[in-house]
Amino acid sequence: MSVARVTTITARSAESFEGAIREGIERASETLRNVSGAWVKDQTVEIRDGVIRAWQVTLEVTFVLE
Amino acid sequence: MSVARVTTITARSAESFEGAIREGIERASETLRNVSGAWVKDQTVEIRDGVIRAWQVTLEVTFVLE
Amino acid sequence: MSVARVTTITARSAESFEGAIREGIERASETLRNVSGAWVKDQTVEIRDGVIRAWQVTLEVTFVLE
Amino acid sequence: MSVARVTTITARSAESFEGAIREGIERASETLRNVSGAWVKDQTVEIRDGVIRAWQVTLEVTFVLE
Amino acid sequence: MSVARVTTITARSAESFEGAIREGIERASETLRNVSGAWVKDQTVEIRDGVIRAWQVTLEVTFVLE
Amino acid sequence: MSVARVTTITARSAESFEGAIREGIERASETLRNVSGAWVKDQTVEIRDGVIRAWQVTLEVTFVLE
Amino acid sequence: MSVARVTTITARSAESFEGAIREGIERASETLRNVSGAWVKDQTVEIRDGVIRAWQVTLEVTFVLE
Amino acid sequence: MSVARVTTITARSAESFEGAIREGIERASETLRNVSGAWVKDQTVEIRDGVIRAWQVTLEVTFVLE
Amino acid sequence: MSVARVTTITARSAESFEGAIREGIERASETLRNVSGAWVKDQTVEIRDGVIRAWQVTLEVTFVLE
Amino acid sequence: MSVARVTTITARSAESFEGAIREGIERASETLRNVSGAWVKDQTVEIRDGVIRAWQVTLEVTFVLE
Amino acid sequence: MSVARVTTITARSAESFEGAIREGIERASETLRNVSGAWVKDQTVEIRDGVIRAWQVTLEVTFVLE
Amino acid sequence: MSVARVTTITARSAESFEGAIREGIERASETLRNVSGAWVKDQTVEIRDGVIRAWQVTLEVTFVLE
Repeated sequence: MSVARVTTITARSAESFEGAIREGIERASETLRNVSGAWVKDQTVEIRDGVIRAWQVTLEVTFVLE
Repeated sequence: MSVARVTTITARSAESFEGAIREGIERASETLRNVSGAWVKDQTVEIRDGVIRAWQVTLEVTFVLE
Repeated sequence: MSVARVTTITARSAESFEGAIREGIERASETLRNVSGAWVKDQTVEIRDGVIRAWQVTLEVTFVLE
Repeated sequence: MSVARVTTITARSAESFEGAIREGIERASETLRNVSGAWVKDQTVEIRDGVIRAWQVTLEVTFVLE
Repeated sequence: MSVARVTTITARSAESFEGAIREGIERASETLRNVSGAWVKDQTVEIRDGVIRAWQVTLEVTFVLE
Repeated sequence: MSVARVTTITARSAESFEGAIREGIERASETLRNVSGAWVKDQTVEIRDGVIRAWQVTLEVTFVLE
Repeated sequence: MSVARVTTITARSAESFEGAIREGIERASETLRNVSGAWVKDQTVEIRDGVIRAWQVTLEVTFVLE
Repeated sequence: MSVARVTTITARSAESFEGAIREGIERASETLRNVSGAWVKDQTVEIRDGVIRAWQVTLEVTFVLE
Repeated sequence: MSVARVTTITARSAESFEGAIREGIERASETLRNVSGAWVKDQTVEIRDGVIRAWQVTLEVTFVLE
Repeated sequence: MSVARVTTITARSAESFEGAIREGIERASETLRNVSGAWVKDQTVEIRDGVIRAWQVTLEVTFVLE
Repeated sequence: MSVARVTTITARSAESFEGAIREGIERASETLRNVSGAWVKDQTVEIRDGVIRAWQVTLEVTFVLE
Repeated sequence: MSVARVTTITARSAESFEGAIREGIERASETLRNVSGAWVKDQTVEIRDGVIRAWQVTLEVTFVLE
């Protein structure tokens, strides 16, 4: 219980950064157990024809090793 | 009027990072006068059972010394 | 098509950081062609009388050179 | 033999940072083969009632891929 | 309970970095309530006549606002 | 005597960065005892109509706790 | 398709940094599917008897989760 | 002659980082006069089907204002 | 009025860093309208025969877009 | 007396980081006079067969020029 | 002529940062030949009784190897 | 054997960054014994008339003290 791992993921959403964070945490929780937190390392947007198409975040996700 | 102080706080919200920022600024304004701005230094989320329980920010808050 | 430029802008909104990002991208797209993305470098808020008056972002905007 | 991976872990000890490092390396060596080194990325302490309850380290652990 | 402050202190010990951290936390807990953690920002030693005279740490100390 | 605090201030002057530093130290010394040093973290200028109106510094000021 | 992971590897070559990058990508592609890119985080050389024996890179490799 | 500007570009090549740098400098010199140097800020590779498709650099290019 | 651009320049003076900053701001104001501020990113000196020949600054200059 | 030099060394110990620091300072004091302090820049461990074989530090050592 | 070394020094002056830089360059030029430039890495002030007693700089000094 | 020094050099080549690194290591090995490695800290190019005239690297070179 006293050791945790940190893994880095990127996730994106068509709506918002918070949508992207939710998406990433949901996806991480499918394969990792005991996810306890995440740090937002980077925030970027993808643009085409002057419109934001994707809100993307890079997250450092911590999960406790059993 | 030409000197200001910068103090670091963390704040959290069950809803969003922006909720956390509002919460932190509100709390800081109770004890500090002349708060003029804040810089978002870090953004993290706390997770339990695969769900985001708290959106947390670290802010560097500037307030002008009278 | 293989060369792009990166320019730094700041933008603000009365509503939210995402509003500020949209504002900045919109303004950048008026004068720059082929804007392909942006990285959020900094997020700050301006405060007066204990209330957030502006949400401001600094963006590094990439646009492809034709 | 010429390729290695780097993974990030956190570990804690009730005694000292060096206890936490030993704890983390021991735990990492249970599941990873050929651990060759680690870099101390961060050191924090957890405090309750004015007493240090845990010494925690974040380590970047390198292990050689066979 | 959802807002905390972060303050920076330096502390020193004739014995070790961990002695300096304990010294700093003890001193901080005299005037601050609800100290919950600290991050080790810097570690330095002072030397005279080839001998280490002081082990000094800079800590970012977090305490919860009531 | 072995514990010090570090606080961040900004100060400005119409003349020079060194004027701003003197201004900041003077102001800090009014309320803090035993100020022992400061680190220049940032230097900026404010400009209006092509003329520098203010030289501003951000300082991390150290003062010894008694 | 909207979530990717980032993993850190080191790789080395007797010839050049680019040889090391190719080596690392090749090795990563054996066990990871959908590798889409890599960022060169560090470049070092190993030297013995005044001669460069190995060109080593640290890469942050991104691969898309299916 | 005593003032220069710094602009950021990205460039890519199918061959190597040095090819990408040459490509970027060539393109920059078409529109900018008196380019005097460049600093390599970032190096990335794009990968598809386990093969490096592009070597990309981010450059901070300096050019002297006449 | 809510969008600004940031551009990087270097400037030098035979006298002092402040002379270099004034020189750079003056030159920037010739071609850019609404320059509102600058951040000193770097300070270097050029030396020949043991004497400082030039004081050079790198500035990030902000100007408001109309 | 008002000018000092800073040199970087690495040192290791089989016991602890503090052992490595003492070792490094001792070795530096053999060839350098007036060593006044050191900053711990990095801490790493070397591991073989799951056991820490060496505690290594990188130090920036300051010594006053006479 | 194509290889240079970089060494780090600190210097101080009772007057100003520029006085400290001149002092440091002068001292470095006594023992090093072909000093070509210096980068200001840090600026600090020492304070006693509310008055600045010393302006101190850390410089990275470059000198060409013959 | 357990203590090493790290020194910073810059080197340049008319051909490539790797040529510059070889040049720097060769030159360093003339005066330093037991050079064991180097870290590439910076890569820049010098340009005149739109052509790259020099590829320059800054290296942190480690050599073991006997």
